[in-house]
Amino acid sequence: MKELDFTPRNLIYEGKSKQIFAVDDPDYVIIRYKDDASAYNGIKRAQITNKGVLNNKISSIIYQQLEKNGIKTHFVKRLNDREQLCRRKNVIPIEFVARNRAAGSMAIRLGLKEGFELPTPIFEMCYKNDELDDPIINYTHAIALGLSDSDTIEKVKIEVMRVNDILTPLFAQLGVTLVDFKTEFGKLPDGTLVLADELSPDTCRLWDADTNERLDRDRFRRDLGRVAEAYGIILSRLEQLK
Amino acid sequence: MKELDFTPRNLIYEGKSKQIFAVDDPDYVIIRYKDDASAYNGIKRAQITNKGVLNNKISSIIYQQLEKNGIKTHFVKRLNDREQLCRRKNVIPIEFVARNRAAGSMAIRLGLKEGFELPTPIFEMCYKNDELDDPIINYTHAIALGLSDSDTIEKVKIEVMRVNDILTPLFAQLGVTLVDFKTEFGKLPDGTLVLADELSPDTCRLWDADTNERLDRDRFRRDLGRVAEAYGIILSRLEQLK
Repeated sequence: MKELDFTPRNLIYEGKSKQIFAVDDPDYVIIRYKDDASAYNGIKRAQITNKGVLNNKISSIIYQQLEKNGIKTHFVKRLNDREQLCRRKNVIPIEFVARNRAAGSMAIRLGLKEGFELPTPIFEMCYKNDELDDPIINYTHAIALGLSDSDTIEKVKIEVMRVNDILTPLFAQLGVTLVDFKTEFGKLPDGTLVLADELSPDTCRLWDADTNERLDRDRFRRDLGRVAEAYGIILSRLEQLK
Repeated sequence: MKELDFTPRNLIYEGKSKQIFAVDDPDYVIIRYKDDASAYNGIKRAQITNKGVLNNKISSIIYQQLEKNGIKTHFVKRLNDREQLCRRKNVIPIEFVARNRAAGSMAIRLGLKEGFELPTPIFEMCYKNDELDDPIINYTHAIALGLSDSDTIEKVKIEVMRVNDILTPLFAQLGVTLVDFKTEFGKLPDGTLVLADELSPDTCRLWDADTNERLDRDRFRRDLGRVAEAYGIILSRLEQLK
């Protein structure tokens, strides 16, 4: 990469938990992690001191591990406590979810006990649309709504399952069960499909493998307390990785 | 077929709109169409005089047309006003839906205007489970829940799309728009996949092609009145077919 000035310039986008800034080079953006926590499509909101720092570090480690295992991502490098440099991409307006155990809304919706070990992983897509509360869709909806094309979705599905196959044993060796996770994908200007967004306790359900203690956003959603402490446990375990 | 006594014997199953009776030959059942109408997972109920007779006749004509076009179904023959002889099968506990236009709950869920012509048809699966209100699923849910296998689902999907490709022009020539329809599939003892259940104004959204007048169960769901009259219009148009 050329030596460039990666000073954040204009705010391009502000989401619930992150800000995205332009930099001089149009191929890159800076993502800044905030301390804002939200749940239930923004109905529940709070500030959790240090959450942004923890998630920036956690997601940076995970994306480095994924890159090492051949997954193409938007991540370039972590710049400081709250910021990371990423490639600019067009994000597909679909949330892609992988699930290894039943939990949360899906467990309720399908009448499964929370924690039920799925015999085969579940792959889900949700239409990213706050007004509609991110409804679950399948690929025929995605195509009819013009959100993506079947070739791209097929590739994303394979990639999400590869991410699951990499992260499940990686977390297991750290004593953490990867229950489920949510991803987003985008395309670089040259059409390359990349994993976008973040992977952190905000977007993954992570349970202590021995105690099933929740070490993720469910602590916030369900008022279990000690949210930042749980995220800190995930970070300290990930820092054990070579 | 051998000459057999197709007198209905024991009631095997009673659903919201149909009864299923055993006959002497274990390969067959008799399906009797009731006048009971229901909507919103049974919350709204009523009797509509003659509906069972109309649906029995309508579904019989549609299944004959489908058989003529190479679709394998459970339908053998209509026996009288309310009864038809069908093959006995193990029904897959999934509702398979095809949609050509946005309507009903799907239009609301995805923020589409009722009547919006989908650029490509949508195929949906719902887990048949009244307690859970028939939640929408995809094939990874179906497999994880043990409802079916991926090979069967792939075959069903192709078959549902073939049914749509047969019925859409068939109804169009009768001045009726096939908006969407719900199907069920089952397997005969030898493993043959067959279209089961019924296709009628109870399970299809059918609109007059000129006026968009609803000629289906939405007349009951939405208290539009003249339900049996609308079903009668569908039957009389289908009776024009050779």
